[in-house]
Amino acid sequence: MSIRSLANAFVPRHLGHRPQFHPLKHGFDEWFGSPNCHFGPYDNKAIPNIPVYRDSEMIGRYYEDFKIDLKTGEANLTQIYLQEALNFISRQQASQQPFFLYWAIDATHAPVYASKHFLGSSQRGLYGDAVREIDDSIGKILKHLQNLGIKENTFVFFTSDNGAALISAPKQGGSNGRFLCGKQTTFEGGMREPAIAWWPGHIPAGNVSHQLGNVMDLFTTSLSLAGLPPPSDRQIDGIDLLPAILQGKLIDRPIFYYRGNEMMAVRIGLHKAHYWTWSNSWEQFSQGIDFCPGQNISGVTTHTQEEHTKLPLLFHLGRDPGEKYPIRFSSSEYQEVMEKIFPIVQLHKETMVPGEPQLNVCDKAVMNWAPPGCEKLRKCLELPRSNPKKCFWPH
Amino acid sequence: MSIRSLANAFVPRHLGHRPQFHPLKHGFDEWFGSPNCHFGPYDNKAIPNIPVYRDSEMIGRYYEDFKIDLKTGEANLTQIYLQEALNFISRQQASQQPFFLYWAIDATHAPVYASKHFLGSSQRGLYGDAVREIDDSIGKILKHLQNLGIKENTFVFFTSDNGAALISAPKQGGSNGRFLCGKQTTFEGGMREPAIAWWPGHIPAGNVSHQLGNVMDLFTTSLSLAGLPPPSDRQIDGIDLLPAILQGKLIDRPIFYYRGNEMMAVRIGLHKAHYWTWSNSWEQFSQGIDFCPGQNISGVTTHTQEEHTKLPLLFHLGRDPGEKYPIRFSSSEYQEVMEKIFPIVQLHKETMVPGEPQLNVCDKAVMNWAPPGCEKLRKCLELPRSNPKKCFWPH
Repeated sequence: MSIRSLANAFVPRHLGHRPQFHPLKHGFDEWFGSPNCHFGPYDNKAIPNIPVYRDSEMIGRYYEDFKIDLKTGEANLTQIYLQEALNFISRQQASQQPFFLYWAIDATHAPVYASKHFLGSSQRGLYGDAVREIDDSIGKILKHLQNLGIKENTFVFFTSDNGAALISAPKQGGSNGRFLCGKQTTFEGGMREPAIAWWPGHIPAGNVSHQLGNVMDLFTTSLSLAGLPPPSDRQIDGIDLLPAILQGKLIDRPIFYYRGNEMMAVRIGLHKAHYWTWSNSWEQFSQGIDFCPGQNISGVTTHTQEEHTKLPLLFHLGRDPGEKYPIRFSSSEYQEVMEKIFPIVQLHKETMVPGEPQLNVCDKAVMNWAPPGCEKLRKCLELPRSNPKKCFWPH
Repeated sequence: MSIRSLANAFVPRHLGHRPQFHPLKHGFDEWFGSPNCHFGPYDNKAIPNIPVYRDSEMIGRYYEDFKIDLKTGEANLTQIYLQEALNFISRQQASQQPFFLYWAIDATHAPVYASKHFLGSSQRGLYGDAVREIDDSIGKILKHLQNLGIKENTFVFFTSDNGAALISAPKQGGSNGRFLCGKQTTFEGGMREPAIAWWPGHIPAGNVSHQLGNVMDLFTTSLSLAGLPPPSDRQIDGIDLLPAILQGKLIDRPIFYYRGNEMMAVRIGLHKAHYWTWSNSWEQFSQGIDFCPGQNISGVTTHTQEEHTKLPLLFHLGRDPGEKYPIRFSSSEYQEVMEKIFPIVQLHKETMVPGEPQLNVCDKAVMNWAPPGCEKLRKCLELPRSNPKKCFWPH
């Protein structure tokens, strides 16, 4: 069985935009979208505008050929991505081809945008307009599957890659409800996302699973759906979520929360232990950059990197999903839970095979000056001289 | 048409437990419940245990005849209240009698309780267990209406009298999600509650209304359902919500937020203007009493009573439901909105007819020492000498 796959609006921002990281090099047959975020507009001198690709060649750039009006927030990108997705599905269905679609829309990523029809439609402002357009578009994709008669043969999984970016709130950012802080942190507001699995005839509507999962699981789960085992030549961190999704099983597994190379926290069941706490630096904070606006938990949302590896801060996320009330060190609950957690973390650290860092070297020359296809469009820009430097990441 | 009414588990805690305030004196035909909260246990010397009434006589006291185990959190009170409600509905239906039921369960009010079947059933701890039992009980009441064939003839309204009491969190208190602070404050976390109206055949399932309402509206709305006009011999603050609930209309009306006698804030549409801000006193706060645990909005969650009457703090609750980002005083939005709000507040203050305060005089002699019916149960306690004093309310 061959599977046609499309990475639509594939946005591996920090996963790399260089040729070796492009989706077509990683198992996708088609690609429509951008290798970076839609930041901009840039002057094409200090920084080039971000390209949009169809398959292996760029077909234009954001703010030039793909308009985003930063003043009004208007852009019809979600509609373009929607049409690409519907067309892809139609084509695969017409040729009776199984397919994998990765539909990564980014309208809710700052700078937030919505198309004309949705602008002003929400009480929540532009951010709400963007959410409504995404919601409407997902409805159209599901309806399309239904109309083609393949809904009972199509597994749909909806989730996000991180919590709301509160640094952009309220105009350009979402909300993490009662969860602590936002994107960039390892508190629940940065790391916990909704996840919805849809497969009529297989998953009963309205079921709730308390299974702990993460986006890495989608790789193994997708292989499982296709009847394939995961690769055995390397360690695969993701697990197959199907027993949880289809049979309501609860798979006991730890989740490790990383920031850079540091394991900041670990979750086992409903307990979460913080080995390090940090929101952001005093330097950033004093400039008005706040990952936890309006929230302040003494000793938890720290602006210095606080080590707790010997006596981690422990929370029960069932009773206290907001990580506001650390469990007392002297309690029997603390003792019992940490006795279970310590060896799991030790094993994890001992067996961890670190990847090669891709974010340490910064070089202006590898930016999107002259992506493949730029000649046809007369959109090639002059490359600056290569000058690799150690990257500066303030968080 | 006569309407039989039952106030079940009627909990007008600070509305008064003295005879003149009892439900039977205020239009109810039957009463089962308590005039106070289920605080306790008391020693019956300094403070008497709170009585439970059937109609005009007490039938026992909390912690004595109606057990609440503070250690385990077990109490079967919700089940008792549920049975009373089901019986009441059955009796009215058997005699073809229209009815009004006020079913005010209090399992989620500290000290939180649940019956044995629900204890430990929730990941959220005892508070979650209590919510699950309430949820289950409401399901049973709705099912009962359905089984009796009167669901299309019965209007059900679900709401709460205030936001979660965060001073009791996490073990004995709920969550207000992203709303600011909790009960006792006039921030959204203290004042905004969910409201669900259920009337099969009249209200389509899943509809959402953005109508601003408050619990006072239920009086006028209930009269409207019964085809009666509100009394004309006094000013009635509540409005008839039926046009909003049944026809999807949006009635433009202000909501005034009071704390004691002070108008703290006002909401018009999506804008809320704070004329005063206060969480609680430094004195209370330094003792660990916190109405806004983990939340701190500079200049908003103040521990001194801050007056802003000349330049109110303005928020847009659509873009900023968490009241984190005051609208700039110099913005045109601020100018335009406050020009609309000022005359509404002025009119409100000019036309306000203050009620007679019922909370200013404290007297141990009026506590529940010897409620009606205590003789039969041999549960009369000796009254202390009357010694009326000005009450002390730290908030």
